[in-house]
Amino acid sequence: MTGLSDIDIARAATKAPIRDIGAALDIPDAALLPFGHDKAKVSADFIDSLQSRPDGRLILVTAINPTPAGEGKTTTTVGLGDGLKAIGKKSAICIREASLGPCFGMKGGAAGGGYAQVVPMEDINLHFTGDFHAITSAHNLLSAMIDNHIYWGNALGIDARRVVWRRVMDMNDRALRDVVTSLGGVANGFPRQTGFDITVASEVMAILCLATDLADLQRRLGDIIVAYTRDKAPVTARDLKADGAMTVLLQQALQPNLVQTLEQTPAFVHGGPFANIAHGCNSVLATRTALKLADYVVTEAGFGADLGAEKFMDIKCRKAGLAPDCVVLVATIRALKMNGGVAKGDLGAENVEAVQAGCANLARHLENLKGFGVPVVVAINHFAGDTEAEVAAVQARVAELGSEAILCRHWADGSAGIANLAHRVAALADSGQADFAPLYPDGMGLLDKIETIATRIYRADGISVPDGVRRQLEEWEAAGFGALPICMAKTQYSFSTDPAARGAPTGFTLPVREVRLSAGAGFVVAICGDIMTMPGLPRVPAAESIGLNAQGFIEGLF
Amino acid sequence: MTGLSDIDIARAATKAPIRDIGAALDIPDAALLPFGHDKAKVSADFIDSLQSRPDGRLILVTAINPTPAGEGKTTTTVGLGDGLKAIGKKSAICIREASLGPCFGMKGGAAGGGYAQVVPMEDINLHFTGDFHAITSAHNLLSAMIDNHIYWGNALGIDARRVVWRRVMDMNDRALRDVVTSLGGVANGFPRQTGFDITVASEVMAILCLATDLADLQRRLGDIIVAYTRDKAPVTARDLKADGAMTVLLQQALQPNLVQTLEQTPAFVHGGPFANIAHGCNSVLATRTALKLADYVVTEAGFGADLGAEKFMDIKCRKAGLAPDCVVLVATIRALKMNGGVAKGDLGAENVEAVQAGCANLARHLENLKGFGVPVVVAINHFAGDTEAEVAAVQARVAELGSEAILCRHWADGSAGIANLAHRVAALADSGQADFAPLYPDGMGLLDKIETIATRIYRADGISVPDGVRRQLEEWEAAGFGALPICMAKTQYSFSTDPAARGAPTGFTLPVREVRLSAGAGFVVAICGDIMTMPGLPRVPAAESIGLNAQGFIEGLF
Repeated sequence: MTGLSDIDIARAATKAPIRDIGAALDIPDAALLPFGHDKAKVSADFIDSLQSRPDGRLILVTAINPTPAGEGKTTTTVGLGDGLKAIGKKSAICIREASLGPCFGMKGGAAGGGYAQVVPMEDINLHFTGDFHAITSAHNLLSAMIDNHIYWGNALGIDARRVVWRRVMDMNDRALRDVVTSLGGVANGFPRQTGFDITVASEVMAILCLATDLADLQRRLGDIIVAYTRDKAPVTARDLKADGAMTVLLQQALQPNLVQTLEQTPAFVHGGPFANIAHGCNSVLATRTALKLADYVVTEAGFGADLGAEKFMDIKCRKAGLAPDCVVLVATIRALKMNGGVAKGDLGAENVEAVQAGCANLARHLENLKGFGVPVVVAINHFAGDTEAEVAAVQARVAELGSEAILCRHWADGSAGIANLAHRVAALADSGQADFAPLYPDGMGLLDKIETIATRIYRADGISVPDGVRRQLEEWEAAGFGALPICMAKTQYSFSTDPAARGAPTGFTLPVREVRLSAGAGFVVAICGDIMTMPGLPRVPAAESIGLNAQGFIEGLF
Repeated sequence: MTGLSDIDIARAATKAPIRDIGAALDIPDAALLPFGHDKAKVSADFIDSLQSRPDGRLILVTAINPTPAGEGKTTTTVGLGDGLKAIGKKSAICIREASLGPCFGMKGGAAGGGYAQVVPMEDINLHFTGDFHAITSAHNLLSAMIDNHIYWGNALGIDARRVVWRRVMDMNDRALRDVVTSLGGVANGFPRQTGFDITVASEVMAILCLATDLADLQRRLGDIIVAYTRDKAPVTARDLKADGAMTVLLQQALQPNLVQTLEQTPAFVHGGPFANIAHGCNSVLATRTALKLADYVVTEAGFGADLGAEKFMDIKCRKAGLAPDCVVLVATIRALKMNGGVAKGDLGAENVEAVQAGCANLARHLENLKGFGVPVVVAINHFAGDTEAEVAAVQARVAELGSEAILCRHWADGSAGIANLAHRVAALADSGQADFAPLYPDGMGLLDKIETIATRIYRADGISVPDGVRRQLEEWEAAGFGALPICMAKTQYSFSTDPAARGAPTGFTLPVREVRLSAGAGFVVAICGDIMTMPGLPRVPAAESIGLNAQGFIEGLF
């Protein structure tokens, strides 16, 4: 513990030139497209040249259900990468890029914390290498081409009431959620009601993160369903001839970004799809590239293991042919206490009983993860104030469940604080124990897939499905989309759809309110609750206190 | 003449590493922030260190009124930079960045043509170094903060009917010109009618291009008037505490971009404000930096000399303390013929009379430019099909006017085709003839400034001004904005407001329909005609044929 803020620690870091970080992974200088001296993209040509190499070990970091107490999943991902490097392993990490919009709402970066951070954190939290801007442009080009097509005569017969493609902006702007466009007369087109989502919610983002190369990217972009005709026939981006120009806009963004941790471990930071209506993982290309270049690749999935890890396994790994060798389930004593019923204001006092009660949440995630055939180790991300008795309670419970819980102090001590976990993870990943299988086969019906996730992961008694949703799923199966995996969109705070139901709730039914087809990304979204795809700013936005100080450094962003 | 397309020529170019281009201007490697291997930003710290150095010569390239026949102003700017380098001068060019949106509408890049191009042209026409995306973000953050302020109680008393700050997108999207936002109920705010402009029309763009450093940038951003109260008191970006975060978003974008011409002449490509509602020049910082580093700096202004050069002189030079040493007025035989009354379809036939008639347009621009106290030389940008008699006619007329018209073949032959012009420009710039003065003094009344431009530059008989506009200008003078220069917004195709009135029209009145205050940029916009700030896409957008070819090269963009 140092008393320094994350940003103080990040600024005091000695960054290696990015070419040295690349060299540590045997990436030649010519294969790095530099962005400043501390960021680079890895060239597509070089990535193509790696295909015949063997893969390293893939380690997934996931967590118990998030609480306001914080879990430190990214911090643990970064720390474990550093820890593996410190014990002599050739390691790399893969995480998501940060969304710009939320930076101006609530304070808080997305690049780890303490002595387990990725740098340059200011750039990563702002424009970085421009990937999200490219996604915004590609998305909105398609939007403009839809209205332009209707304006010039609508040869495809698009039903203006059935345009499902909205616009996006990487900003928290509630005023754009629901708008009417094309007002002002004949020259501006046909008025219709539509809206904006935040860029990370764009299907283009999910596509970029699942695409295996430029050709696959263009194919997926072309498959996007943007609207339906009066006869309910789908109209795609390919029908509008938008897929080529969108691919051009995304050509550079598709190349993974390389940066470094505070301890100069190579870090791929690439892509950042929403973890509710999308799958919430960094790009397939970044993970695949890291696996070709490093012996141990540590990555993370969004939200808790019920949503994030399940989608990592059933969408990303299934589609990309990846298989994790080990899973790290992150918990904190504070978050376990909250799962055990303690209010945030009461977290200061030792409460072993609450920790034990909260372990019900941990235990269910642990069991679920083992169901994917992968060995699991629990990381207790240490906070000041955790007591020995509380830590011991978790370790005892996890041992009963046949796994191990290891206390980690990477936030305060960097790699030195996480050596035990690093050794254990390396041993598990090398053990050959992993025998990965997704939760359900491609051939299972769409509704059965949803029910399988609900009952086996969330432990719901069953699902409730309106007739319209049932019919819609049947229509998609008839149209050839039956083999797609499911992307669940529900609250991340509980196994159930009630965000207040912490711990391990039982006796509930999962209501499926709506389904959406992401034909380009290649999944069916099942919406089970209120899902916000365009956030708003709070009463006092962080933006009000963001600025440059006298030294030219950014203040207020973190 | 080679039969190769612009893109073929650009791709065949041998690009020097950007650090070598920097080195040619004595920019140390550490002062370059690379974007790939062929683009870089010049660091603000390095620019600060140059302040005590003497300035090189400043050469403005402008043109007669544009016609569909084309003039080649950017091509001539690039060619002249190459030509000066080829005759042994240390030269650099300064031009604007391209807007992304229009690339998907009509074909045509913005990086010169033939053997006078700036490279990498694909990047320059697409995302480049992300400057325009940063401007879009900064602009829309302010927009979001306005509606958010109203949503949370409107402590500043903003009159929702008098919000003048719209949103922007770098896309041609007519559907966004006129929209109603905040529909959908209480959680989404108060519905109001507003719209989107294209990013180049943002006042933030004009501000970035006029700011002299980060502190000046933040001051100007804070001065932006976003709305008025019920009592018509202005509400600024500073009142909303948005200026600091906007500056953070623009910190990197403010640093000028360095690329190269086909002949490896250093080229600063930075900023790109609209040439109607803004001043249409590249950034002050780029021009100032180039003047510190090169002996001869060639730059250009938007549209014809009546709009572009006048604003360059009266807004950019006045505000930045710059003074041109020589002006190059570009004309083509084809454009002169069109100004002489020939239709586009009839341009193929020799027509000396039409050329002579069209010289009325050239002559008026020439006279206007001399009025600024700067020596002028005419460049005839050669096209295949121009006849000797036609060229001779122009040269004779220009000689009568006391200047020289020099035939240039840089499009076909690069620097070898423009050596005569380069020698003449260098001699004129070195001659000490220039005694620059803007058209009107700061202290002249706002309405008088408008009338001065109208009568002395456009040669109107006078101006017609509605009472409301007159009153508005008086109010701004009373509020302390009387010393600002005027930014005229009218058609670029004529001296008058009738785009069909080519040549040198007389006997017309200039109607001033509307005035707008750009308090951050520091000018008053006088709108004299229909000004489109959000273009639409054509029936068959260029986007439909843009894509990657089998070699991974971009096709259809140019």
